Order: sequence, then C-alpha cells, then structure tokens
Amino acid sequence: MSILVVGSVAYDTVETPFGKAERVLGGSASFFSVAASFFVPVNLVAVVGRDFGDAQLAAFKGRPIDLEGLERQDGATFHWQGKYSYDLNSRDTICTELNVFEAFKPKIPAAYRKSEFVFLGNIDPALQREVLEQVERPKIVACDTMNFWIKGRLDELKKTLRRVDILLINDSEARELSGEWNIVKAARAIHALGPKTLVIKKGEHGVLMFSPEGSFAAPAYPLEDVFDPTGAGDTFAGGFMGYLASHGGHGEEALRRAVIMGSALASFCVEAFSLDRLLKLDRKEIDARFGLFKRLTHFEAI
Amino acid sequence: MSILVVGSVAYDTVETPFGKAERVLGGSASFFSVAASFFVPVNLVAVVGRDFGDAQLAAFKGRPIDLEGLERQDGATFHWQGKYSYDLNSRDTICTELNVFEAFKPKIPAAYRKSEFVFLGNIDPALQREVLEQVERPKIVACDTMNFWIKGRLDELKKTLRRVDILLINDSEARELSGEWNIVKAARAIHALGPKTLVIKKGEHGVLMFSPEGSFAAPAYPLEDVFDPTGAGDTFAGGFMGYLASHGGHGEEALRRAVIMGSALASFCVEAFSLDRLLKLDRKEIDARFGLFKRLTHFEAI
Repeated sequence: MSILVVGSVAYDTVETPFGKAERVLGGSASFFSVAASFFVPVNLVAVVGRDFGDAQLAAFKGRPIDLEGLERQDGATFHWQGKYSYDLNSRDTICTELNVFEAFKPKIPAAYRKSEFVFLGNIDPALQREVLEQVERPKIVACDTMNFWIKGRLDELKKTLRRVDILLINDSEARELSGEWNIVKAARAIHALGPKTLVIKKGEHGVLMFSPEGSFAAPAYPLEDVFDPTGAGDTFAGGFMGYLASHGGHGEEALRRAVIMGSALASFCVEAFSLDRLLKLDRKEIDARFGLFKRLTHFEAI
Repeated sequence: MSILVVGSVAYDTVETPFGKAERVLGGSASFFSVAASFFVPVNLVAVVGRDFGDAQLAAFKGRPIDLEGLERQDGATFHWQGKYSYDLNSRDTICTELNVFEAFKPKIPAAYRKSEFVFLGNIDPALQREVLEQVERPKIVACDTMNFWIKGRLDELKKTLRRVDILLINDSEARELSGEWNIVKAARAIHALGPKTLVIKKGEHGVLMFSPEGSFAAPAYPLEDVFDPTGAGDTFAGGFMGYLASHGGHGEEALRRAVIMGSALASFCVEAFSLDRLLKLDRKEIDARFGLFKRLTHFEAI
C-alpha cells in the first residue's frame, strides 16, 4: 500500500555545536519520504526550483519514491537556515527564503489519486484540504501543522482537522491548539476537533499517543551523540506512517509499533546532518534498533 | 527486610494554582517513609521541634514506620514555603526556615544498625557519610542530593558517592554533577564516581535508569489532574526502595519493576496536597496503577 506525502523539499543550512552544513537536502517531505520508503512505496508531492539538481535528486533515486509529483518551477528552491544552541534544545531561525514554495499549489498526479494513506505535511491548512479533495477515498489521513497556522489560520486548520484521522504535532503545539496546558486535557480537546488519534512529539522526551483505545508512552532513544536534530520529527512521521501503511491498518497494536518504528528512524536521523544517516541505513539496522527500544522499555508484570 | 531512611520531616506551606495548604506535613523522609511502608518496615531518622504534635505523627501511626529515630529538639520544626507556577512546571521558594534541622546530626538507634537497605535523603554529604559509619553492613545504599551540595560541597559529595550503590537525582542535577549536558555521557561520568546504578528523575517526562545491565526508560503517568507536585521525587524514591527491599535484591528486573512502582506511587502523591492521597492509598490501588503503566508502555515485538 503506497503513501502520498505533500510537504516541502528544501535546502537547509544548519549550524550545530559540532559543525555546519550548507545548502544540504532538507524539507519535511524529504525526510518523510526517505523514512517511509523503508516500508512502502511513496508518492512525493512538493515543489523545487531550477537550482535543484541531480545531486539532490540522487537521495530519492534507487528507492521506491515516485517523483512525478515533484514539480519544478522557475525560481529558487525553499531555503531554511538555522542555528542550534549548545545543548541542541533550542534553535534560532537565521533565515527562511520560501522562494518557489511561497506559491506552492499541490497538484496530485492522476496516478496518486487512489492513495489510501495520505500525509499532509506542514503547509497552509487550506492547501492541505485541497490535497484531500484531489484524493479519491483515503483510508488514513495524517497531518502535521505548526504554531504559525494555529495562530494565524485557526479556522482553516479546524476545517482540515475534521477530515484528519491522525494528528502528529509537538507538545507546545498541542497546548496552543487546545488552549489546555495539561496534556491529557489537551488531547481530549483535540480529539473533539476531529483526529481520533493524536501523536504528541516531545523531542528527547519521546512520544505520547492518545488513540481511541487509550494512551501509549514511548521514550526517545538515549543517544550519546546527537549531531543534528533537524528533520527528526518528519523522519518520525515517515517511519510511523510507513510502518502503518505496510500493515494496511491502524489497530492499536499497529499504532504502537508504528510509534516505536518512527522513534527508531528518528534516532538515526539525528546522528548526522541532513539525510546522511538515513541514506546509509538498511532495514536490518532499523529492526535492530526497534529491538533496543523493546529492551529499553520492557519490565515484567508483578 | 527493613529500610533505614535519613532525611527531613517538615512543615510545608504550598501554593498551587488550585489552592493553598498551610503548615501541612512534608519533608523528604515523610514522603519516603509512607511510600516505602507499603512494602517493608521503615526505620525513620529525622528531627522535629516541640511544635510537631500528635496530629502530624498520626500520618506515620498504624503503618510499619518505626519512630525511635525521630528525634525531638527544642525549637521549631523545619518549615518550607513554596509557590508553583500556573503550569506546575516551576516553583519559587518563598521561605526556608531550617530551625532544628540546621544542626541535625543523625543518630542511628542501635536497633537500626543492622539495616540492609539505606536511603540517604538530601542532607549534607558529610552527614550522609556519618550515617553510613553507624550502619554495620548495608546491602544497598541509595542516595539523593541537590544542586546546593553539588555546588558547595562537591568534594564531600564525591567521598559519599564512592560508598553509594544507587544515586537518585533529577536531570539538571545529573548534568551539573557530571559537567556533561548529554544524559548518556552524564550517566557514564557519574558511574565513574561510584554509583553503579543511576536513576534520573525527569518529572512529567518520567525516569531514565542507567544500571550495569543497560538503560531503562519509564514515562510518568499522564494525569489529567495534577494538584501538587511537592514530594513526588521522595515518594518515587520510597516506592522504588520499598519494592527493592521487599524483593531483597537489586537484579535488573527488580530494579525495573522498582522504577515503575516508584512512578506509580509518585503518580498518586501529586493528586492532593501533602501526603493526603498517600495516606488513603491501599496496596490494591498501587498494583492496579502498576498494571496501567504496563498497558501505557507495552508494544509487541516485530
């Protein structure tokens, strides 16, 4: 079962305490697609400029990632530049050059319209809805968003959320969207907006999922060397959705394993700049890290 | 197998967004003792003033908590006053009146000297060592400390840590003690100071344990109504040590279940002011919450 993903493909310039990477491949849809492609074929919808070349495309080649939906427009590719604090726990955006992404109107190729799994990356919620209107009968719609849309386009976002099954956001976004500080109350308020399942990403503190069958908590893997957190959330989403799609469903046990799979993928992502670590990864390493998560969290019943 | 605990018995005045409690029972040894007493007999060593009356003692009565070591001195009992922020994630200390606690020199009654499980609450590290010198042959020594001692009495603390098996501290303390921001590196540095097992408390984000057999991550229970976080860390320690002592050992599986037991106790503690919720608790409720932690964290292997 394939996944349709709509989001950004971008150049990132990233500075961490350990080094700097200039104009490397980034963007939510890039991280998502590569992570999901370990499990199922991915149909990628995004836009790049004329400056986006074969070297960048190489990251997607040789993987089950279809590029028919990767539009090329006159102009420059979206470029984001950020700098992390010494502890990697906060970052400053140095510049955001939207370029061709500013006028992005996702066009879903005919071949993608039967997609059963859809991931709406972090774009204008009105555009997220336009994507859904071009898809025939999705089985699972998952969605990301950010504070910018919660603040500025709340009505549009609420309309979109009514059509979303799974919302993946971080804890501060969940609090802002719900107006509730307590995370359990926040989850209940967000369920009432539409999504039956809410996956709250807490960075180094892991993930909390609230589904129709209850709550599930997963830690982040305690890593000795975190090199660059950029893309970890999108990589999580890709691993999560990829695993779900490969199992064709979203029962509670599949959702839980999908959270762990997403966490495993994200734990590799942060080990290097850009998609460097993901591109060297194989399924055996992923499954081994899934096993480490099992060992990390297991305890016997009393 | 009984536990010896040395720490504070105090009056707390606590203000949270939900109310205020004046001069209620508090102190690390109070929370610890009541939590541990669900599992094993507890020998309590602390000091109170002449103002500490039968009403306060009632909390310990009817439980297997021996009070021979609860010294009564001329003067007033230790009083701490704090106020929590609207989100309960930070607190300001309004006043700390050490009173009789200032000159506390723990004297271990003869009947306590054969204790096999010892918990050194957060007091001057030189005093923690004096306690150890009065105990014959402890099997497990666990210890708490705080930034105040890490900053001001590091050499003394290091001498104490060489004799400690299990150190229980929070994440900011682990970083300060080790000089390492990364928590895995911090754990390695602390192991080198003596404690073979390190339990890092992260509040609403749960617990990370680094033991000789690897790492274990446990979430905090996602509660809808957190009323007052005061004493949660000491309650965790009490549940943790109580469970370990009741099993007479500290193998990896017992340590992991002890972390969950401590987390379960702590999740009750925060539901009310002071020890109010703990004092109404029974073992059946504790075991039921242990079961909820199992459900909260369980996923199937792939």
